[in-house]
Amino acid sequence: MAKYAIGVDFGTESGRALLVNVADGREVATAVHPYANGVIDERLPDSGIRLEPDWALQDPNDYIEVFKRAIPAVMKESGVRPEDVIGLGIDFTACTMLPTKADGTPLCYLSQWRSHPNAWVKLWKHHAAQPEANKLNETARNLGYPFLDRYGGKISSEWFIPKAWQTLDEDPEVYAAADRFIEAADWVVWQLTGEEKRNSCTAGYKAIWSKREGYPPDAFFAALDPRMERITGEKMSRTIYSLGQKAGGLTVEAAAWTGLRPGTAVAIANVDAHVSVPAATVSEPGRMVIIMGTSNCHMVLGTEEHIVPGMCGYVEDGIIPGFFGYEAGQSCVGDHFAWFVENCVPSAYEREAAARGVNIHQLLEEKAAALQPGESGLVALDWWNGNRSVLVDVDLTGLLIGATLATKPEEIYRALIEATAYGTRIIVETFAANGVPVNEIVATGGLPDRNKLLMQTYADVTGRPIHVAGTHQAGALGSAMFGAVAAGAAAGGYDSIFEATPRMASLRPEAYQPIPEHQEIYERLYAEYVLLHDYFGRGANDVMKRLKELKAEVRAAK
Amino acid sequence: MAKYAIGVDFGTESGRALLVNVADGREVATAVHPYANGVIDERLPDSGIRLEPDWALQDPNDYIEVFKRAIPAVMKESGVRPEDVIGLGIDFTACTMLPTKADGTPLCYLSQWRSHPNAWVKLWKHHAAQPEANKLNETARNLGYPFLDRYGGKISSEWFIPKAWQTLDEDPEVYAAADRFIEAADWVVWQLTGEEKRNSCTAGYKAIWSKREGYPPDAFFAALDPRMERITGEKMSRTIYSLGQKAGGLTVEAAAWTGLRPGTAVAIANVDAHVSVPAATVSEPGRMVIIMGTSNCHMVLGTEEHIVPGMCGYVEDGIIPGFFGYEAGQSCVGDHFAWFVENCVPSAYEREAAARGVNIHQLLEEKAAALQPGESGLVALDWWNGNRSVLVDVDLTGLLIGATLATKPEEIYRALIEATAYGTRIIVETFAANGVPVNEIVATGGLPDRNKLLMQTYADVTGRPIHVAGTHQAGALGSAMFGAVAAGAAAGGYDSIFEATPRMASLRPEAYQPIPEHQEIYERLYAEYVLLHDYFGRGANDVMKRLKELKAEVRAAK
Repeated sequence: MAKYAIGVDFGTESGRALLVNVADGREVATAVHPYANGVIDERLPDSGIRLEPDWALQDPNDYIEVFKRAIPAVMKESGVRPEDVIGLGIDFTACTMLPTKADGTPLCYLSQWRSHPNAWVKLWKHHAAQPEANKLNETARNLGYPFLDRYGGKISSEWFIPKAWQTLDEDPEVYAAADRFIEAADWVVWQLTGEEKRNSCTAGYKAIWSKREGYPPDAFFAALDPRMERITGEKMSRTIYSLGQKAGGLTVEAAAWTGLRPGTAVAIANVDAHVSVPAATVSEPGRMVIIMGTSNCHMVLGTEEHIVPGMCGYVEDGIIPGFFGYEAGQSCVGDHFAWFVENCVPSAYEREAAARGVNIHQLLEEKAAALQPGESGLVALDWWNGNRSVLVDVDLTGLLIGATLATKPEEIYRALIEATAYGTRIIVETFAANGVPVNEIVATGGLPDRNKLLMQTYADVTGRPIHVAGTHQAGALGSAMFGAVAAGAAAGGYDSIFEATPRMASLRPEAYQPIPEHQEIYERLYAEYVLLHDYFGRGANDVMKRLKELKAEVRAAK
Repeated sequence: MAKYAIGVDFGTESGRALLVNVADGREVATAVHPYANGVIDERLPDSGIRLEPDWALQDPNDYIEVFKRAIPAVMKESGVRPEDVIGLGIDFTACTMLPTKADGTPLCYLSQWRSHPNAWVKLWKHHAAQPEANKLNETARNLGYPFLDRYGGKISSEWFIPKAWQTLDEDPEVYAAADRFIEAADWVVWQLTGEEKRNSCTAGYKAIWSKREGYPPDAFFAALDPRMERITGEKMSRTIYSLGQKAGGLTVEAAAWTGLRPGTAVAIANVDAHVSVPAATVSEPGRMVIIMGTSNCHMVLGTEEHIVPGMCGYVEDGIIPGFFGYEAGQSCVGDHFAWFVENCVPSAYEREAAARGVNIHQLLEEKAAALQPGESGLVALDWWNGNRSVLVDVDLTGLLIGATLATKPEEIYRALIEATAYGTRIIVETFAANGVPVNEIVATGGLPDRNKLLMQTYADVTGRPIHVAGTHQAGALGSAMFGAVAAGAAAGGYDSIFEATPRMASLRPEAYQPIPEHQEIYERLYAEYVLLHDYFGRGANDVMKRLKELKAEVRAAK
């Protein structure tokens, strides 16, 4: 009989289960279950407590419901027998974390804490721990801790320690009541297996852990706040498991939720972006995976440790065991085009799109694709949402240069596409210049299917071939692959992700090759982009920051 | 009996007659007559000869038709008796020029030349003499002629000598057949009075003449082309008449065209922009007039000669006799907002405007006016159509900085308005720094009535009160004022424009005063504008020019 694995991908609004044939990665059935409480950013359930604007919480019970609903749904749809499902893997948004009791019970389940915002899951996009992040960065810099270098010089307010520290700052009773602070990824695996096993990916990328140095020492946490001195030993765990390991087997209770058999192998948890890398066929250095969606996430493997300036982070065993996983990002890609379409496209274009039965993105892409590189005379800096890599500066803003009275919307649209391609090239070249070569790019995520011009432009601008992952569900497929690895070859799976990757992951047959005549023109345009990038991004003219400060002042006074 | 004067304003598409009460400037009747041949930019009338893209011609007969139609119309509408019309003045677009025979017959009237494009009137926006303008500027610079300093360092392709030289270059037979090259302004006065009398305004601003030095010497023209050596003596006229002088009286023939009495006083011709200055109540230094329309034209009087860097020109007697008339300009103001509305306003805004029964400019103004200065975080450089003053560089292009994913169309719209205000402030401050003070601004043209936010922004940014001229027809009113001056006090008019101005011109009662809290914020924003202006405009980063060159290359290769 054929063997199957299930991947469960926990997104921001819903969870998805995907049932996959272990032999060839064929996607047999999929089901999505939306979270009943979604993103909690106005009022807490039950108590109705109002949240501050930067908050974003979730209800952990919603995650359990995904197991109870989506897995039975794919079993039913596929008709696969439970005994033929050999493994289960999960991936999650990150850093999405929560406080629990020692037995894993979320504090927010307990009536005592249910009306305390800090008792709930803090979602990745919870931004209320910025003061803690600022203090953490300042303290680390002042005390000379070198770990900041691994994260482009800055720990984000979205990450683990600032979020835990916010709990201590704002609600010390919740902090005291929390026996554990844990990534939701690891928490759901704990619920499946009964074992608390923390993964190397979130520990490394989000919680300042490294395989060689572990967490920062207690003295560092004491410097942040004496009450936090022993957080890693007492409220977290210093034992970290590598991706590709087995976390345990399904408990009887979890088997009942899912309809799978007790003991079914469950993989160590993973993160949605990082698990997409093997799903995009990459388990070796030199081939970068870019997840292209509202933002871009760039991941590439390296055999050695390198400090690459301005990257989001690098973690040994963080993507594929045995390699350093390097990550970079661009904060504004699909969001950029969505902003443009919502705010800048004239009604004549909407009428034309409607008359021709295409959507407005298709119309713009078609008109923009009819232009030659360089023909618009425009260059943009893709900083509408700040710069994540390599400048790591959220206060940078967008720039468009070269407009004339003859400038058309499709020219601006194309300039925005090109700007994100230049931004990717800076990342690629910064990696390459620092010992992490990138010879080829594999794209995945929502954009590659929707915008061929975007893909061709990335190939032309970066001078690298761009392939596209075969799957539309890279997160869930990657999780299923790790599920097959957790099961092992003896059970009909694989003994390592290196064996699973070539069999279960695939590329589309078509790829985008750089067009030499385009490359020649883009060399010149990229030189202009770099000049502007450095002038506005590296301190020669901090006009963007001054304008942002003035804006904040004016709004505060209003 | 009350006395009247008529002003005739020759625009790009039509001519307008305005009949005015001499005592108080009251506008009694007005009539517009469109040119039958309009702007000739595709094919010549009759022959159907096809024109190159940069050409823009007119038919001089269309101007005569304005006299024949519009003047009788205002006479009829007003019921004024011909003997009570004491004077007539005209103003014209410039440089709009034509070749004629010695008796004033346009070459294009003659069947021999009618199919020769160079035999027709070259309209102000005829741009096909750029090669000649380039050679002229280069020659003047190489030979060290100082007159370029009077024109911001450059003679425009729109001006007189390049247009005449183009005729020689392209059609030497037409050049040889032309006994005269003359401004259309002076040609229509010639047709009215039978006397060829050239005005100091077009001679000075458009034909490199100055009261103290006359035209450049024959040696200069010989250096351009030996065949052009004696052009000013033989095909133009070295006798130039000041604004405010009388050109002559209506001929019997012209009296018959118009229904006025033979001998009615006709003023020396004027230019539409410059004649608006007294119509906006200004006949003294210190008060700048800005004509705000598709572009901005700034005019201010000075008692002394100053080289003001980067201005369009200064001419003694060029606006008001006895003063140096200083002129500057911004090439993209109303055009800027029109471009934005056509290319960048989403359909949701158009629907909102339609639902509320306002036009889209009104809606944008209303939304933009609800913002505080500095609130958008945006700054723009208003160079969508190059920079006319003070950088004098048509190859500069637009820039927008500070956009985020929350940026709204009205914020961009407001940033464009502010950018044109910063551009005006640079002009005002450059004048002031070079000995030509500007204490107050009077606005006229189409925009002041349509956009209060624009007016308030100019007051806030420049720190000067902005008044608005009472008339909606500043050109025609100014011409009528000069008509009353040509008639003289003895005939019921005035002996000088200084006497006519306070009586015939007026301001609106309401004015725009700078708001101190806005000024404070705009000081900071203006500093950012200046920094960007100098960085991109003065050679530190010529990215705009390089992008334009690349665009031209790519389009040429297409």
